[in-house]
Amino acid sequence: MCALLAVAADLPASQPAAGPVERWSVFEAAFDGPRDGNPFVEVRLRAEFRFQHRVVEADGFYDGAGVYRVRFMPDTAGEWTYITHSNRPELDGKSGKFTSAPASRGNHGPVTVRHAYHFGYADGTPYFPVGTTCYAWAHQGDELERRTLATLRTAPFNKMRMCVFPKDYVYNTNEPKYYPFPRDAAGHNDYTRFNPAFFRHFEQRVKQLMEMGIQADLILFHPYDRWGYKNMPAEVDDRYLRYTVARLAAFRNVWWSMANEWDFVKEKSLSDWDRFFRIVQESDPYQRLRSIHNGAVIYDHAKPWVTHASIQGDDFNKAEEWLRAFHKPVIYDECKYEGNIPRRWGNISAREMVRRFWLGTARGVYVGHGETYLDPQDVLWWSKGGVLHGESPQRIAFLRKILEDSPQSGLVPLPNQKYPVVAREGEYYLYYFDLHQPAELEFDLAKGVKYQADIIDPWAMTITLAPGAYEGKFTLKLPGKPDQAIRFRKLR
Amino acid sequence: MCALLAVAADLPASQPAAGPVERWSVFEAAFDGPRDGNPFVEVRLRAEFRFQHRVVEADGFYDGAGVYRVRFMPDTAGEWTYITHSNRPELDGKSGKFTSAPASRGNHGPVTVRHAYHFGYADGTPYFPVGTTCYAWAHQGDELERRTLATLRTAPFNKMRMCVFPKDYVYNTNEPKYYPFPRDAAGHNDYTRFNPAFFRHFEQRVKQLMEMGIQADLILFHPYDRWGYKNMPAEVDDRYLRYTVARLAAFRNVWWSMANEWDFVKEKSLSDWDRFFRIVQESDPYQRLRSIHNGAVIYDHAKPWVTHASIQGDDFNKAEEWLRAFHKPVIYDECKYEGNIPRRWGNISAREMVRRFWLGTARGVYVGHGETYLDPQDVLWWSKGGVLHGESPQRIAFLRKILEDSPQSGLVPLPNQKYPVVAREGEYYLYYFDLHQPAELEFDLAKGVKYQADIIDPWAMTITLAPGAYEGKFTLKLPGKPDQAIRFRKLR
Repeated sequence: MCALLAVAADLPASQPAAGPVERWSVFEAAFDGPRDGNPFVEVRLRAEFRFQHRVVEADGFYDGAGVYRVRFMPDTAGEWTYITHSNRPELDGKSGKFTSAPASRGNHGPVTVRHAYHFGYADGTPYFPVGTTCYAWAHQGDELERRTLATLRTAPFNKMRMCVFPKDYVYNTNEPKYYPFPRDAAGHNDYTRFNPAFFRHFEQRVKQLMEMGIQADLILFHPYDRWGYKNMPAEVDDRYLRYTVARLAAFRNVWWSMANEWDFVKEKSLSDWDRFFRIVQESDPYQRLRSIHNGAVIYDHAKPWVTHASIQGDDFNKAEEWLRAFHKPVIYDECKYEGNIPRRWGNISAREMVRRFWLGTARGVYVGHGETYLDPQDVLWWSKGGVLHGESPQRIAFLRKILEDSPQSGLVPLPNQKYPVVAREGEYYLYYFDLHQPAELEFDLAKGVKYQADIIDPWAMTITLAPGAYEGKFTLKLPGKPDQAIRFRKLR
Repeated sequence: MCALLAVAADLPASQPAAGPVERWSVFEAAFDGPRDGNPFVEVRLRAEFRFQHRVVEADGFYDGAGVYRVRFMPDTAGEWTYITHSNRPELDGKSGKFTSAPASRGNHGPVTVRHAYHFGYADGTPYFPVGTTCYAWAHQGDELERRTLATLRTAPFNKMRMCVFPKDYVYNTNEPKYYPFPRDAAGHNDYTRFNPAFFRHFEQRVKQLMEMGIQADLILFHPYDRWGYKNMPAEVDDRYLRYTVARLAAFRNVWWSMANEWDFVKEKSLSDWDRFFRIVQESDPYQRLRSIHNGAVIYDHAKPWVTHASIQGDDFNKAEEWLRAFHKPVIYDECKYEGNIPRRWGNISAREMVRRFWLGTARGVYVGHGETYLDPQDVLWWSKGGVLHGESPQRIAFLRKILEDSPQSGLVPLPNQKYPVVAREGEYYLYYFDLHQPAELEFDLAKGVKYQADIIDPWAMTITLAPGAYEGKFTLKLPGKPDQAIRFRKLR
């Protein structure tokens, strides 16, 4: 048996404890255990973590070379104890304790749903998802992965859609460095075991995103596969889910996306997806956000295990219907990509991408970015990461700042309006006029309040204060050009 | 009885015949007849026009002051004879003859449907509708009406949507100079009679459009009314239709639109509209084009009396469905207006208007223009005419020229394409990429033919020949910016 280790997850497992574990960070305990047989399928390990009267259970996992680990995210600062349970005596009844320290600056905790249609961090800070997509960035090798991380450091994105499994698709046919299962030279996967090196690498990338404040929207299955991962036996699917949850759930920035384009995975049925949701829901001690992303067919996001809708689509007229139907946050996280490739989904202009962000925002949903510019080495951001070439990210940064300046309880679309508008009535209104260019317009805001009016140009990234204070019903002169927004804020 | 008059319709009725009547122009015979009682309802007059073995019947009409007229458009050059029939002996059995001369340059005859989805003039010239809308321009008084005509002389439009009845609506509350029915100071209409002065004035405007080669898409009913015309007894509706057809059908540029926003005329039922179609169909010797324009509810344009679909809407994704369902030409003649008024339907940008023209074109339908810029005197083109202020007309002129250079038999949308394209296979292809900006694209054109490729910028109004000749399946470099079109034409 090895010593109890309370370590940050990025440290090698053999390193001794390094002081208290910050709230919402990863505590990890490692144990020597059996190497005989197949530990991945034969050995059960879980731990009960206690804080005063509360007990939280977390599954452990086999990390290879006789080492077993249990990871845990303390959600409260203070003294925690734990005790293990296993079907193998060497791993059963191990106990220990650790101290969880208050969160440091920049650690706001995990994100959950707030105010029905929005998100917030555990510390109360609102979270406005402004996501991007690099499906296979974590399978590109260190050099390119480091470049992607460097790009993300100054990019406006606070969420990343990314696949756990490697991806095989147009512009993305390179072989990954790591495979999730042992794989022989003939291409045969040993689905009875996992490849810990694959997961250690992947976890490292998730953790690096966490350190940058980026949510990792982890896609558990997807159809773009030549290795066999979309077509595994059901018991392997389920074991893979439990193993992945055991390894990754403790990272506070993890979100679970059951699939990208679930309906394009022809090998699975709707009941498979329902089962996957339930497995993740049962296994994850923290109840991280759960979604599923469509190809052509929208999953019923009203099902109880779905925390928010993850939509591929660009019909923002459906936003209202979906918000009402699901009564959950709706993220249009794939509304086509800024780029210039021949595919329809990968060649919208930067202006159109920015327009979609604003249109979604003004309809009460969130929007996701992606970029697909032709590259001589086929390094397209949407799949491999690398660097950004487009003109939309800086405008998305501008919008993100506006969102972060909006009311903490989130904005909701006003019904029966001529132009899209989200508001917190009596306090804040954000209109977007899209292709319309009224030179003047009558507004009718909640009475008894004086507002200041800002005319916002989403592309030029300007905010121009309109002179005067506004109240009730009034007519305001507008720029008379397309693609303008206007914000009313209560004067203080 | 007065002398037989063969005159151009714009000449005063008393003027003597002025030589042969040009083919597709208006022959008019005038007769003195009864003044007693109510000639509008009590006197029946029609004439049979004969050319060799053919007989065409046309209704006459009472023009006031004891004068009755029959108008007729000869569709064949040569000798025509006629004889009248009436329930009053003074008007019965009058006969005469006239010569129809060949059409002069610029007179292509009336427009009918061709090649299922397109239009053509009687002389074989294709007609590509590029319409605009000035609903009430003919009710604005001579000064403004002349200004409108002057504008149209250099504008790109070859069709005008215009109301027969005056219009009462926002930005259009002025009183008309003429009323279609006698009206007393208290605002009571005498629906048993017509006001010939109203119709003479209106006809003059229709004829002036004809002389400029502009089709007059005459709207017979509409909901925007404060005088009573939307709510007349059924017998008055029917008499009005027959009287209007008798007076106007002979003008070769007349099209009949049963209504603007038929479903917003709450006083009428669907069966009324069906009846109106049948009345016009039965009364009109020339079978001028017939349509009906929707508000929110699309009329079933598959009904046999409808010659083409007149659509209010801007969802060009429906174009394919409608072409298939109706198997008729489809004109999106109201897809919102370029302008800056507060109303959503009247403030799209010039770029958006041009975009819609191209999008419709590339989907195999036709598109109509309108303009609504705020004006201190409320002279908005869409309603009153006047002058154009927008930036779309010159681009629409550019598109019209491209259309007129396209194959005479018309273009049809190709099925199952990734980008909208209309073509005559093996000869001509016109793609529009809208918000997509591919930097290269693979095309697969009908084989065995070499094509030249033109890259078209609809806003900049440039046509750039791509070097080389193209055949079968090939990849072409494209500008990699949005709002571009490409045209392939068979090399000769």
